[in-house]
Amino acid sequence: MKKITSLFLLLSFQEVSFSQAPHVQSDSAMIASIYNEVMLNGECYENLRYLCKSIGHRLAGSESAQKAIDWGKSTLELSAADHVFLMPVEVPHWTRGTFEYGGYTLSGNPREVALTALGGSVGTDGKRITAEVVEVKTFDELKALGADEVKGKIVFFNKPLDATLINTGAAYGGGYPIRGQGPSEAAKLGAVACLIRSLTLADDNYPHTGATNYEEGVKRIPAAALSAVAARQLSQDLKNNPHLQFNLQLSCEAFERTMQANVIAEIRGTEFPNEYITVGGHLDSWDIGEGAHDDGTGIVQSIEMIRTLKAIGYKPKRTIRAVLFINEEFGNDGGETYARVCKETGLVHIGALESDGGGFTPVGFNCDISDTQYERVQSWLPLLEPYNLFRFRRGGSGVDIRPLKDDRIALFGLNVDGQRYFDYHHTNNDRFENVNKRELELGAAAMTALVYLMDSIGFN
Amino acid sequence: MKKITSLFLLLSFQEVSFSQAPHVQSDSAMIASIYNEVMLNGECYENLRYLCKSIGHRLAGSESAQKAIDWGKSTLELSAADHVFLMPVEVPHWTRGTFEYGGYTLSGNPREVALTALGGSVGTDGKRITAEVVEVKTFDELKALGADEVKGKIVFFNKPLDATLINTGAAYGGGYPIRGQGPSEAAKLGAVACLIRSLTLADDNYPHTGATNYEEGVKRIPAAALSAVAARQLSQDLKNNPHLQFNLQLSCEAFERTMQANVIAEIRGTEFPNEYITVGGHLDSWDIGEGAHDDGTGIVQSIEMIRTLKAIGYKPKRTIRAVLFINEEFGNDGGETYARVCKETGLVHIGALESDGGGFTPVGFNCDISDTQYERVQSWLPLLEPYNLFRFRRGGSGVDIRPLKDDRIALFGLNVDGQRYFDYHHTNNDRFENVNKRELELGAAAMTALVYLMDSIGFN
Repeated sequence: MKKITSLFLLLSFQEVSFSQAPHVQSDSAMIASIYNEVMLNGECYENLRYLCKSIGHRLAGSESAQKAIDWGKSTLELSAADHVFLMPVEVPHWTRGTFEYGGYTLSGNPREVALTALGGSVGTDGKRITAEVVEVKTFDELKALGADEVKGKIVFFNKPLDATLINTGAAYGGGYPIRGQGPSEAAKLGAVACLIRSLTLADDNYPHTGATNYEEGVKRIPAAALSAVAARQLSQDLKNNPHLQFNLQLSCEAFERTMQANVIAEIRGTEFPNEYITVGGHLDSWDIGEGAHDDGTGIVQSIEMIRTLKAIGYKPKRTIRAVLFINEEFGNDGGETYARVCKETGLVHIGALESDGGGFTPVGFNCDISDTQYERVQSWLPLLEPYNLFRFRRGGSGVDIRPLKDDRIALFGLNVDGQRYFDYHHTNNDRFENVNKRELELGAAAMTALVYLMDSIGFN
Repeated sequence: MKKITSLFLLLSFQEVSFSQAPHVQSDSAMIASIYNEVMLNGECYENLRYLCKSIGHRLAGSESAQKAIDWGKSTLELSAADHVFLMPVEVPHWTRGTFEYGGYTLSGNPREVALTALGGSVGTDGKRITAEVVEVKTFDELKALGADEVKGKIVFFNKPLDATLINTGAAYGGGYPIRGQGPSEAAKLGAVACLIRSLTLADDNYPHTGATNYEEGVKRIPAAALSAVAARQLSQDLKNNPHLQFNLQLSCEAFERTMQANVIAEIRGTEFPNEYITVGGHLDSWDIGEGAHDDGTGIVQSIEMIRTLKAIGYKPKRTIRAVLFINEEFGNDGGETYARVCKETGLVHIGALESDGGGFTPVGFNCDISDTQYERVQSWLPLLEPYNLFRFRRGGSGVDIRPLKDDRIALFGLNVDGQRYFDYHHTNNDRFENVNKRELELGAAAMTALVYLMDSIGFN
């Protein structure tokens, strides 16, 4: 009897071992073939070169954004997706214009300042605003000054991001309210314009643009960001001459909203074609630089995911989509429209994944998922760790896919080493040359591996 | 009785809780203060600027290496170390000379080739070698050709590194034997010179130097590395004209060995001053570029460790040393000498840590440690994970500290995101501008945190 039991136990264990091992082995082999395909035959780097160098920056509503939409569609068609189509999206149309000037004279010497208008800023009506500058760090400091000290002046928010925060996104988050609400808070006290220190951790002379959000019912005043170097200099000069006269001229202009489109490609599912997995980034960028890390990289990685699954001959169970969202930067119209249309048409998602943290080395995934889903993805980590993917970090996924949130969907964001991201973000320096080929490719491969795991194993 | 037991249990648990919590809390607070000090007041980036821009590259045996030794000593003195001294080390003295040329004529058009001599190569005696080129990928291919096909020709090893390996160090390791032994293997079959494709994963026009090791008793032939672009071009041109005549001229020269020094700084231990922890990088570099990532970053991080411990007022139990090793690149004289002197003087190490993978974002530590030590460091991970330090990876530490290996010492190497490392490694492009301030600082802080843990908790 003892012998039989042992044999029985042995067989049971073997069965467990056999029933699990091939699965794990095939997952592991599939992920290896994804990585090999991307690292040896990847097209995302050359696609990024084209997007950055031949199209360039592409603010939603602009002609170049339209070119990017056409390029996205034809590139996805070349990737052998089963079906590529456009989804109309209404977007704003704002231009910086061709002229921006900031400067002042100190002890008879003119000093020009590196600045750029915040996205959505009003212009200065072809005139130059000349006014004294009042420097503050916080909204509380501003309010403490009161209208008497602020009226008729230019408010200058000069607060560096917190360098002690290890995750640069958290540091950026700390400065974000000043860019968004600073101009309206200043206007409430009678300021004639608003300057902010750029939201960056770098100490250089690139000004960083980005959306500002005028509060309804508050006077819209011109708003611009100074480079870190210019902000330090101005602060120093204000100590020497608190009454210096700052000159500001911006030629921004807002137009009627216009129609552009999300670009969507899909590989139809073979078993559950009505269950969707969406992978995307945003096709629009700010209107300076080349929108390389923000978010050309997310775009070419999403296209690479489709190309790679096709190239290795993978037939997904679910329907896999790459979505090139339009206008993340300036109101999230692409993401909002996509989620609305999915809801209206009863389209069911099991997962979505976004890449919008730059084309840097991935370290894992951010996730906005249930406890059960979290347990599931933790079990995938041993398959991902050989590729230096260390974690699923709860909290946050991406702006474009967030509107898809419901009780079922698992949302993920590619989590990259973001130390350099806010050096380039929204500047003239966000260029193709600052993207490393392997780092970009590793991100694309990591995304494709997660799509494979979501599709083949799922969350049931 | 039941009540008393419960109270007893409660008290016991509280005691456990009190005896552990303050320790964990103080470790966590101490590591936070290390990171804050480095990220807010760090001097390593400006130190690196000086080392790269005011001293520049510093091949062991050269005058600039001597300048770097003097700079290292005075910078460590400024860091408030208790004691700074030099340890004499005998090093080789080799120069590239001022002239390097490679090229050929194809269909009447001259083509100059981006190449650079391998470290230690002999020169061409003021003459130009002109010979046919035979291209191979491996030693086996070379041997299969035999002396008949090789004699009087230039052997060209043209094998790209394996891009599918995720850890670039492993890819580099795969190419390393060709640089080290290629020239002697070619010479054994009568080759007159040897060219190799640079050991890089980048597709650019920078040639990468690095030591070659002539085999004793084999004729020493001139050896140089071609850039990736030049190697591809030459290979293509050889297909069109297998008999093209390659011209090679190198002005390298070897001199008598000479005396330089390791620079050593220490903070004396307060409880166990005779137990040592050594932290270091190598002060020498190759003689092109600025030796920024290799290994200026390891040098300034080691100095920063000393500065930071002093700045936050930490009084170590053990004696902590920063060692700026001389001549890692060309025979490891600094590391060998240091270990020998430590052994001769009976100096006992509990741990050593090296940074020689570039000043990129750290992801953890490599380690060459016992199972018991591994268990200990794994228990430190929760303290390190908030800083995105994900792992202790077994295998490998660093070339400079490896000679210290004995039954007791725990050896560590800073494990960084090395995707870009072999783009810069041993090239004219290994420059200060390619080092990111925060990435460098995070490495310095991670190193200091590990030193703190080794010192305060240790391995007993």
